[in-house]
Amino acid sequence: MNIDSVYSGLTLAPKGKLALVVMDGLGDLAVAQYGFKTPLEAARTPNLDQLARQGSQGRMIPVAPGITPGSGPGHLGLFGYDPLEFQVGRGVIEALGLGLELKAGDIAARANFCTLDEDGIVTDRRAGRIETDVCEELCSLLSSSIQFLEDGTQVIISPGKGHRFVVIFRGLGMEGPISDADPNREGKKIPAASPIDPSSAAQTKAANNIREFYQKALPLLVGRQPANGFLMRGIAHQPAIPLFQERYTLKPACIAIYPMYKGLAQLVGMSKIEGAHSIAEELELCAKHWDEFDYFFIHFKDTDMHGEDGNFDAKVKAIETLDAALPILLNKNPEVLAITGDHSTPCAVAGHSWHPQPVLLNSPISGWDGLDRFTEKNANSGSLGIFEARYLIRHMQANAKMFDKFGA
Amino acid sequence: MNIDSVYSGLTLAPKGKLALVVMDGLGDLAVAQYGFKTPLEAARTPNLDQLARQGSQGRMIPVAPGITPGSGPGHLGLFGYDPLEFQVGRGVIEALGLGLELKAGDIAARANFCTLDEDGIVTDRRAGRIETDVCEELCSLLSSSIQFLEDGTQVIISPGKGHRFVVIFRGLGMEGPISDADPNREGKKIPAASPIDPSSAAQTKAANNIREFYQKALPLLVGRQPANGFLMRGIAHQPAIPLFQERYTLKPACIAIYPMYKGLAQLVGMSKIEGAHSIAEELELCAKHWDEFDYFFIHFKDTDMHGEDGNFDAKVKAIETLDAALPILLNKNPEVLAITGDHSTPCAVAGHSWHPQPVLLNSPISGWDGLDRFTEKNANSGSLGIFEARYLIRHMQANAKMFDKFGA
Repeated sequence: MNIDSVYSGLTLAPKGKLALVVMDGLGDLAVAQYGFKTPLEAARTPNLDQLARQGSQGRMIPVAPGITPGSGPGHLGLFGYDPLEFQVGRGVIEALGLGLELKAGDIAARANFCTLDEDGIVTDRRAGRIETDVCEELCSLLSSSIQFLEDGTQVIISPGKGHRFVVIFRGLGMEGPISDADPNREGKKIPAASPIDPSSAAQTKAANNIREFYQKALPLLVGRQPANGFLMRGIAHQPAIPLFQERYTLKPACIAIYPMYKGLAQLVGMSKIEGAHSIAEELELCAKHWDEFDYFFIHFKDTDMHGEDGNFDAKVKAIETLDAALPILLNKNPEVLAITGDHSTPCAVAGHSWHPQPVLLNSPISGWDGLDRFTEKNANSGSLGIFEARYLIRHMQANAKMFDKFGA
Repeated sequence: MNIDSVYSGLTLAPKGKLALVVMDGLGDLAVAQYGFKTPLEAARTPNLDQLARQGSQGRMIPVAPGITPGSGPGHLGLFGYDPLEFQVGRGVIEALGLGLELKAGDIAARANFCTLDEDGIVTDRRAGRIETDVCEELCSLLSSSIQFLEDGTQVIISPGKGHRFVVIFRGLGMEGPISDADPNREGKKIPAASPIDPSSAAQTKAANNIREFYQKALPLLVGRQPANGFLMRGIAHQPAIPLFQERYTLKPACIAIYPMYKGLAQLVGMSKIEGAHSIAEELELCAKHWDEFDYFFIHFKDTDMHGEDGNFDAKVKAIETLDAALPILLNKNPEVLAITGDHSTPCAVAGHSWHPQPVLLNSPISGWDGLDRFTEKNANSGSLGIFEARYLIRHMQANAKMFDKFGA
């Protein structure tokens, strides 16, 4: 029994608008170092408090117990896609992070320039960390000479920061994953890209195209210093993911500032509303386009950024900034509002973690859990319990009265 | 998608040592009979309190809602093996309980002497509950005459307490389960052991060997009173279980006093550290061998024993004894410490039960749940929630920073 098909079979038209505010990396830990308080506990959050006094809380397992997600699995879960079923390769995530538009079936690779000696041995995996403008120049050089491979596959080369770039192969009949064209340490030659499953014709075709690309590209870099070679890793195809709108019967929009999150939304077919530079501007854009969509995904990056830096005070302040901007959204009176993270980024970890992120869910029929603030501890005893993040969209749909009764 | 293979693919070397303290049958119930307090609530536990004031709590479902586990499934769950997938037959558990060393593929049966009349009808299933020394004498009699069967299968007979003994068949190509050679009531003949799945050659071979054993053994008992026959039940093979060390990349040690728990640890390949006679001695042994292993399983029996007896005060005292000994372990500063039971043994039940056992998990990144003591009620609102016991090891590994990020 596929539970998604059960939900689909029960789906009705939404009552009102649904909004998901993702405070990236929101969840945190109470540890001695920060006075046994979490940033949510330490922050002054009058608007979140007001929502907590009318709403329900819980905590969400992003993937599975103990598993720390990257941004890709974290967001796919929030969008209702099981991150273990819909895995997105690193090359694809990297391309999304550069704001590149991928199509289903595109092969994407993370690449970086490196230094080779006369025997083809990698002597510096990062080519002395060349400046971004040098990387851009080298990418232009490659792009101008190589646009297509012999089987008609299109090659798209896009520079990133420093020595990093991305290569996309757009053609028919290719699939990942492909082994790295990267020895992963210095002192060895670049290994040829190979299919992970040699019996797969689609992987073999993709690997052959990558080899052909190497044969065409390496001669163009001969004599360059320090970047006379390049490595490719995380070579994967953009998976076919069921479209959000078809899956949930909700017309979705994404409002984000960073390309990675726009890219992840685009993976599931969300429309992008562009132009914001702050959370207040994001929420104003949301209000402006309120009538055009049923579901809004609004991404707030700062909580994650400061968690990664282990900067407790800055994370507190980021939460307060979001809280202060919230009335712009609340004035539109969403039928269902969910506020959560895509995972935890505890200051004590200074990185993503597996600790279930707290979630606050408000609707006229969410009920109140008797809790006065939205915090990790309160969320532990909320009515939503601790559940897998991929069910959040189902809670949101249920609160928008989108599910018919199951059985008589 | 096999979740265990996902964990394996992300596994890194552990940061520091992991310790699991199992207070057997720890969980209990607040009922009128005992003043609506549980033993954990009634006990004076300064060391557990201190751990609670820095740690996270939750409750664990040993197998599935409402299912009461035996010691086998209870411990396999704690070791991270789904007890529904890895089922260990009663014969195997009984053999482990006698301290017998089993090999993968061994067939083990619980057996007991009985009384038969001249027509072979069972008249007393326990042969008048003969004394242990009589049982030992009869086992010697059988062992001295029957060491091998016709196909070369070795027979190992080992006496237990009273009328009970265990028979192990060690040979090639055999598998359980085999139907009981036991009518399960008096007034009937002993049925022949048969393969549960008659199409299984391995089960058929095992059943035939058990029949041959009966043909050789029963004549040796003719004329004995009151034990002139025997019954065999729970006939099963030792299953092949993936080794703990390979599965988790952790070198494990078991410190237990009772043979059953050493046997269960041995099933998954743990090394045994022997010689303790009290929980304090167990923890001292642990400290002494601290540098030799990554993971320590420390088993404490008394909580279960007193729960089985419905002896509330003795269970409280057992908890206090463990609490007093804890500093021996805490002084070694384990990176990750989990304290829990393998199941609940509530005094009001006077036996194992299905009620989720409380768990306390401490590490520098476990976070604090705002709870001042480790109790069943507090565990209900802990950040770990209520989860299947087989995920405890994954929480422990995550807290030891043993998992790489999933996805980019």
